[in-house]
Amino acid sequence: MKTTILINCPDQPGIVCAVTGFIHSNGGNIIYLDQHVDKQADVFFMRLESDFDTSKFSLSAFKIEFEKALSQPYQMKWRLYSDEVRPKMALFVSKYNHCLYDLLTRYKSGELKVNIPFIVSNHPDLSYIADQFGIPFHHIIVTKETKAAAEQEQLALLKRYNIDFVVLARYMQIISSNFIKHYPNKIINIHHSFLPAFAGAKPYHAAFERGVKIIGATSHYVTEDLDAGPIIEQDVTTVTHAHSIKDFITKGRDLEKIVLSRAVRLHVEGKTMVYNNKTVIFT
Amino acid sequence: MKTTILINCPDQPGIVCAVTGFIHSNGGNIIYLDQHVDKQADVFFMRLESDFDTSKFSLSAFKIEFEKALSQPYQMKWRLYSDEVRPKMALFVSKYNHCLYDLLTRYKSGELKVNIPFIVSNHPDLSYIADQFGIPFHHIIVTKETKAAAEQEQLALLKRYNIDFVVLARYMQIISSNFIKHYPNKIINIHHSFLPAFAGAKPYHAAFERGVKIIGATSHYVTEDLDAGPIIEQDVTTVTHAHSIKDFITKGRDLEKIVLSRAVRLHVEGKTMVYNNKTVIFT
Amino acid sequence: MKTTILINCPDQPGIVCAVTGFIHSNGGNIIYLDQHVDKQADVFFMRLESDFDTSKFSLSAFKIEFEKALSQPYQMKWRLYSDEVRPKMALFVSKYNHCLYDLLTRYKSGELKVNIPFIVSNHPDLSYIADQFGIPFHHIIVTKETKAAAEQEQLALLKRYNIDFVVLARYMQIISSNFIKHYPNKIINIHHSFLPAFAGAKPYHAAFERGVKIIGATSHYVTEDLDAGPIIEQDVTTVTHAHSIKDFITKGRDLEKIVLSRAVRLHVEGKTMVYNNKTVIFT
Amino acid sequence: MKTTILINCPDQPGIVCAVTGFIHSNGGNIIYLDQHVDKQADVFFMRLESDFDTSKFSLSAFKIEFEKALSQPYQMKWRLYSDEVRPKMALFVSKYNHCLYDLLTRYKSGELKVNIPFIVSNHPDLSYIADQFGIPFHHIIVTKETKAAAEQEQLALLKRYNIDFVVLARYMQIISSNFIKHYPNKIINIHHSFLPAFAGAKPYHAAFERGVKIIGATSHYVTEDLDAGPIIEQDVTTVTHAHSIKDFITKGRDLEKIVLSRAVRLHVEGKTMVYNNKTVIFT
Repeated sequence: MKTTILINCPDQPGIVCAVTGFIHSNGGNIIYLDQHVDKQADVFFMRLESDFDTSKFSLSAFKIEFEKALSQPYQMKWRLYSDEVRPKMALFVSKYNHCLYDLLTRYKSGELKVNIPFIVSNHPDLSYIADQFGIPFHHIIVTKETKAAAEQEQLALLKRYNIDFVVLARYMQIISSNFIKHYPNKIINIHHSFLPAFAGAKPYHAAFERGVKIIGATSHYVTEDLDAGPIIEQDVTTVTHAHSIKDFITKGRDLEKIVLSRAVRLHVEGKTMVYNNKTVIFT
Repeated sequence: MKTTILINCPDQPGIVCAVTGFIHSNGGNIIYLDQHVDKQADVFFMRLESDFDTSKFSLSAFKIEFEKALSQPYQMKWRLYSDEVRPKMALFVSKYNHCLYDLLTRYKSGELKVNIPFIVSNHPDLSYIADQFGIPFHHIIVTKETKAAAEQEQLALLKRYNIDFVVLARYMQIISSNFIKHYPNKIINIHHSFLPAFAGAKPYHAAFERGVKIIGATSHYVTEDLDAGPIIEQDVTTVTHAHSIKDFITKGRDLEKIVLSRAVRLHVEGKTMVYNNKTVIFT
Repeated sequence: MKTTILINCPDQPGIVCAVTGFIHSNGGNIIYLDQHVDKQADVFFMRLESDFDTSKFSLSAFKIEFEKALSQPYQMKWRLYSDEVRPKMALFVSKYNHCLYDLLTRYKSGELKVNIPFIVSNHPDLSYIADQFGIPFHHIIVTKETKAAAEQEQLALLKRYNIDFVVLARYMQIISSNFIKHYPNKIINIHHSFLPAFAGAKPYHAAFERGVKIIGATSHYVTEDLDAGPIIEQDVTTVTHAHSIKDFITKGRDLEKIVLSRAVRLHVEGKTMVYNNKTVIFT
Repeated sequence: MKTTILINCPDQPGIVCAVTGFIHSNGGNIIYLDQHVDKQADVFFMRLESDFDTSKFSLSAFKIEFEKALSQPYQMKWRLYSDEVRPKMALFVSKYNHCLYDLLTRYKSGELKVNIPFIVSNHPDLSYIADQFGIPFHHIIVTKETKAAAEQEQLALLKRYNIDFVVLARYMQIISSNFIKHYPNKIINIHHSFLPAFAGAKPYHAAFERGVKIIGATSHYVTEDLDAGPIIEQDVTTVTHAHSIKDFITKGRDLEKIVLSRAVRLHVEGKTMVYNNKTVIFT
């Protein structure tokens, strides 16, 4: 069985030695180890992939022992993933189809190792794609008046299906603080600019107006501050004076879908940790 | 003789035909033609390189004729460059040497076809580089109190040497509106961020704080609004959580020098036009 | 009506003037003009988008006139596209689905302005995607023995549907010279390397073996020489020692689909010209 | 004192634990750890930066102990760098100045932490740069007839100054096997193409001829096979049909100097390991 352990704790000498020794003495073989020290915050981060012989290994016993032998003495926050469990992902969309299509084709191909119990949208437009891929589609209308109720309905869905994380695949609505509190660092958004430039609405128009020579896309965890959450992934492409706003949008679509899919993959593979509104991305 | 003509005028049918016909009938051979229409502003832009047989060609007569036959009827703004004249460029620096070195080595190699009569700095630190390349170095101290007088001294130097344009090669001072008025769209700055993100002071620190995954550099014409002038050139490079602010600065230096040198080259080769605080860059 | 004219002819003074004058005098307004001179081959290339008032304009008369007034005197090769006609594109695939999905989702979204009468494959695996998008799927088995017959069957299909061009979306078969002759510069392939490096089979394995730090993808027109046709589009991404061949393949898929889709779009929009086994790409 | 240890050895469970435990028990604090397992070759690689309290630490005793406790039992090949010693670097050049200038300006700025006792060239052209930076310049003519003698003279210089590694900064001569044997994986070259494409002479001409849309530069360790040594660093830039060979060369210069300088820096900072003609690059 392959397990991935993510750790962060106050930095001190000897952590790597203690953790690798623990894995070793529990019969595990370390396949991958990466660590990082945030020197400003004095925090230690580690990602460790290990292989255990399933016949001799009890995951639940291991967890109890890890908690006692390492987590408590070193004040660790830690998570453990096993490759035998697929996380459950909910997709929120509006009218744009490119990110949805890109995620679903990766899912269908087996590249994205998740389960997708349903798609939620505030518009009915993309239900045909849900049909193409045989995934339930919930059309939940969101207006100023119905927003609170709509979010309750969305949350109920997420709970009912034990959703692990939410992907906003060009879902054109602002998520309330209340909603975010239920899924801290578990809602992934794609913003169609090179953040922090052009946060908020109509970033391609703003980029065109400013006359930039490069446009970008940014995927981040959603926090209460609009477009200001921890950045997971960014990418850019060049533009010139000859490109219209429409060209920006067309070129940007390819960025958006690639950047969002990369971010989702990093999240699913347990390669992201959040600290002080920033991410550590293990690759 | 090779000439480069840059034109902008209100858009209307027939301009390309009129201009190319004029060149043709004056014995010129068109080597390169690029044009652009800004559909929002309804403005036509063109860049034209032509070759004339010097034995049969009078540049001054050509200019008078162009003005009468084309410029007036089409309400053109136009500039003409000849490859026989090198523009005069002044360099302003403070303490960082990488952009200065990069420009001077290109100048020395003949890649940058300008004359550099002098270097101005508010600090004495880089005078050794001026010595290495045999270029006069003027140390003009700038403090809050002496700023106005210092700018007068700088302007006097620029006038005395008939300087065509100014390059701020990491010159860490804000240029006054009065100074800019003397050199509209003729002062090129390098800002060490992907503008409009992180305008103002300490952009690498701000980028680090925000946790971006890509950093950039932007070269632009200086206008009264700080770091908000027409963008000539931008480029970016990736960073990770493992990079410190010091790493950002080191990686950024390579961006800054390359982006500034590209922008200066575009300006020198008559490939930039400014309109509505944006640039048209012919390549 | 918007028309796009592509021209190449021996270079001589006055061509731009003659063509733009002709458009102008036929009531057309030039929206976009780009030209290029291959100085080694002494060949002139031009792409011209013009707008004509349909009520006063006869396309067939225009073509006859263009042939007489311009094409013959200047020895032009030229093509004319009208935005009222969608080209017919055939898709050839094998077992990989990413390029097929990417093209079909762009087609479905209206980004790719073509008609796709059918998909051909030598394997049945991707018929489910054809079903998802409601496009006829022809499974034509290709073995060493049946190859000639299979190509006859493919060609018959292409003829029956008046196919304009063919896209090999990771179709893992070599196309015969005979087949290519029917569609010169009309068969677009995607090769999963940065050509000319790693032509032929298993380029990711070869790239891994060589220890490169960057991998790429190349879209090109198919010619008799394997992977040596005129290059339309290339792109690259970085890799490290930590990436396995499997990682190369995963990262490469995103390159392949983006590069192929860009190349197809350039072809569809009449932005590609081929000369001396190279392309002129107007953007 | 900061030390950097580079290790490779046959892979087996427990290495990370053993090494980090050893550092820990010798009073060291691990600042940075990165490891990699080449699963095909079954080889383990590690780079470890540690901080030791100089007052309680003997480097020579540590080395003896490391050899006994770790290197022998695990069959390690290992190197140890201390930040108190600057490596000695020799520069070989011919007539192109851009890479030489770029390296020397980084050296002068303190970015490149080496000593440069001399520059060798087969042409006198760049002696003015050696003068600008106050570095001895040895003009050693290389002809077919004098090559063996010239290399003896070069080797004698290298020995006399205890040179640690050699940088070929566009030195346009092929290095003999005999010479390479004295400095295995210690001679860094820059090749002006995206290897393995366009190995050998005149790569920009070959790239132009082939009509590629991207050109590159590659820095590698020199081995007996021309342009086929372990790749340290690569980068690329886009080109179009409008670029002449001269444009390729100009654009390429910026690539070459940046790529070579990055590679030299990686080497100097002990971030490169070579195995099976490939590099592991720790960053």
